[in-house]
Amino acid sequence: MWRELRPIGRNGDSGGYRRYAWTGADTDCRAWFKAQAESRGLTYELDRNGNQWAWLGDPSQGNAVVTGSHLDSVPDGGAFDGPLGVVSAFAALDELRARKAAFRRPLAITNFGDEEGARFGLACVGSRLTAGKLTVDAAQRLTDADGVTLPQAMEAAGYDPEAIGPDPERLARIGAFVELHLEQGRALDLSGDPVGIASAIWPHGRWRFDFRGEANHAGTTRLVDRRDPMLTYAETVLAARREAELAGAVATFGKISVEPNGVNAIPSLVRGWLDSRAADQSTLDTVVTGIEKAAREYADRHGIDLDVVRESFTPVVEFEHALRDELGTILGGGTGRSVPVLGTGAGHDAGILSESIPAAMLFVRNPTGISHSPAEFAAEDDCVAGVTALADVLEGLACR
Amino acid sequence: MWRELRPIGRNGDSGGYRRYAWTGADTDCRAWFKAQAESRGLTYELDRNGNQWAWLGDPSQGNAVVTGSHLDSVPDGGAFDGPLGVVSAFAALDELRARKAAFRRPLAITNFGDEEGARFGLACVGSRLTAGKLTVDAAQRLTDADGVTLPQAMEAAGYDPEAIGPDPERLARIGAFVELHLEQGRALDLSGDPVGIASAIWPHGRWRFDFRGEANHAGTTRLVDRRDPMLTYAETVLAARREAELAGAVATFGKISVEPNGVNAIPSLVRGWLDSRAADQSTLDTVVTGIEKAAREYADRHGIDLDVVRESFTPVVEFEHALRDELGTILGGGTGRSVPVLGTGAGHDAGILSESIPAAMLFVRNPTGISHSPAEFAAEDDCVAGVTALADVLEGLACR
Repeated sequence: MWRELRPIGRNGDSGGYRRYAWTGADTDCRAWFKAQAESRGLTYELDRNGNQWAWLGDPSQGNAVVTGSHLDSVPDGGAFDGPLGVVSAFAALDELRARKAAFRRPLAITNFGDEEGARFGLACVGSRLTAGKLTVDAAQRLTDADGVTLPQAMEAAGYDPEAIGPDPERLARIGAFVELHLEQGRALDLSGDPVGIASAIWPHGRWRFDFRGEANHAGTTRLVDRRDPMLTYAETVLAARREAELAGAVATFGKISVEPNGVNAIPSLVRGWLDSRAADQSTLDTVVTGIEKAAREYADRHGIDLDVVRESFTPVVEFEHALRDELGTILGGGTGRSVPVLGTGAGHDAGILSESIPAAMLFVRNPTGISHSPAEFAAEDDCVAGVTALADVLEGLACR
Repeated sequence: MWRELRPIGRNGDSGGYRRYAWTGADTDCRAWFKAQAESRGLTYELDRNGNQWAWLGDPSQGNAVVTGSHLDSVPDGGAFDGPLGVVSAFAALDELRARKAAFRRPLAITNFGDEEGARFGLACVGSRLTAGKLTVDAAQRLTDADGVTLPQAMEAAGYDPEAIGPDPERLARIGAFVELHLEQGRALDLSGDPVGIASAIWPHGRWRFDFRGEANHAGTTRLVDRRDPMLTYAETVLAARREAELAGAVATFGKISVEPNGVNAIPSLVRGWLDSRAADQSTLDTVVTGIEKAAREYADRHGIDLDVVRESFTPVVEFEHALRDELGTILGGGTGRSVPVLGTGAGHDAGILSESIPAAMLFVRNPTGISHSPAEFAAEDDCVAGVTALADVLEGLACR
């Protein structure tokens, strides 16, 4: 399966993938999914929001076990984030058939559309629409960098944008959703385990810091006469690192916009975006409050005006404890060894769906800890361990 | 004169000016210059490089006294940087005629084209071409942000781009060039003088610092596993300020470019541009060496690769001492009071021409010290003092 998927949407220069929603690369990935479904005799279905489904058994029977992930990518992303969960789902089904497993519940494999949000700026569009977490109006207003709207992009790819909307009947048929994903961190590498179970998705938010000073000539303005917002920004970047270290959280300034952004001009405005996440809400509050407090002290000292705006916020998502514990029992049961249960700082379709249906996640060890980059990696043995674990979970849920 | 000039190229939102070379606003400024020349019975001339001249007397007589500046602006620049020198030149001529001064040398007022370089990225294009400091080949390759080349822009504005090139015959007729300019700093404000004389243009350079780390997910990558170049950039920005303070120089990071510049991505590359200037070469060397050394230490500590490239460099320009001293004698002579002589961190047409002909500059007090911004300012009394000083200088040079 990997061999056919590997060349799709690959960027020759970086070796990274550019599989953006409703582009040619995305269409090729979707054709691959459909072919995989049909070659296994599964019933292929495209839902109203452009998510793909491959059914074994009759969905109308209800209480289905569903597994899958996404095939789209971030700009110059790696090969595993998303596809590992879809490929492993098909491979786990092959494994279960080799085991001659008898299915007592319907099973489906899915590819959720536009998980990364690389094109339209909003993540998990396919699962959000299905779960009613994104209104049709708001979805219709999504626009890419070239001014193409989501409906226009869907239509250009041959899909009917009129059909999008919440899909409660579909969700009502699902008893459990399990998403396997490459770990986006090094917890499993450090604990020495090939596979882990997700406990929760950390609360996270994005804050915009606008530092306003005074535009002036970089060659002629004495240092004491300057109100240079770049200095305050720099101090705040370092404060964010310190606060996150103290709290065991993460905080990142990865995006910046400067006006006028001229080599010989002291900036009038430096706008920096803070992304911060922590294991729980109170830790996150402590980190962000600490960063903002430090930034205000620096700003006051240099005559800089500071505005801080929270642009987005997602509270903690706890995966259903019953399903999570069931996975732990299935995977650890035979050996007596407990499978690590770990939090994650990244959002996922499973997180979106967990508010509507029981959802869980399996993570596969990533020795580099890197993701969203061509350097993300999983060893072949660990991929096989992931498939085996997923097959065990599906067997435990659907065949007993 | 100010009343007619004020609305041209003014941006309603910021109150700043956008008078870029060979645009409609530039054409309007040029029409204003021509009308001012003709209304005073001066002989109007457009030279091969698009610089404007208004002659009193016969240029072929040689040893001319020339004064003027430029009318173009930086993006959202102020009203004074450039126009003050041209308006003051016409006003000084009016003053000399009121004094019934008898001219013994030809006199010209000039408007040099494209001094700020806001459109094509190179400053002082008009004077550089005339002085042979910019080759025709290089000038023809200059391109603006929309991909329009300098020859195309000149042609669109009705000028012949085939004509551009060095103009040594013209320079050979000039005995002295005096440019009056708003001070771009607060030295005169601090010394309490309305007018000063330029000693030199500080040496200055631009260096590009490329900090390369590792792109990664901002939500899932542990702090200890990061190679985040934004941290090293921030430390270097603060080091630049410290080094400049220690040396009494200036150093500015005002332009930045980040890849991938995503809110949830640790950057792979942060590229920052350093602008640094000092009163002499050895001080500038000390400052830049200190900044680079600090940056390399930070980079090594965080696993960041650092490349530093010097993108441009202009050595110190000392204005001709004989002419400078003559200005000092003319302006200070009657009162016994000495006129301040001060260096400047900014480049000017007078600096370009000073390598070919005797050149000097007068500065008018700027109480804010601000320039390249709508907040740049000169009080009316100081503008009048500037006109009087310029008239005195022109009378001293051309009428004795």
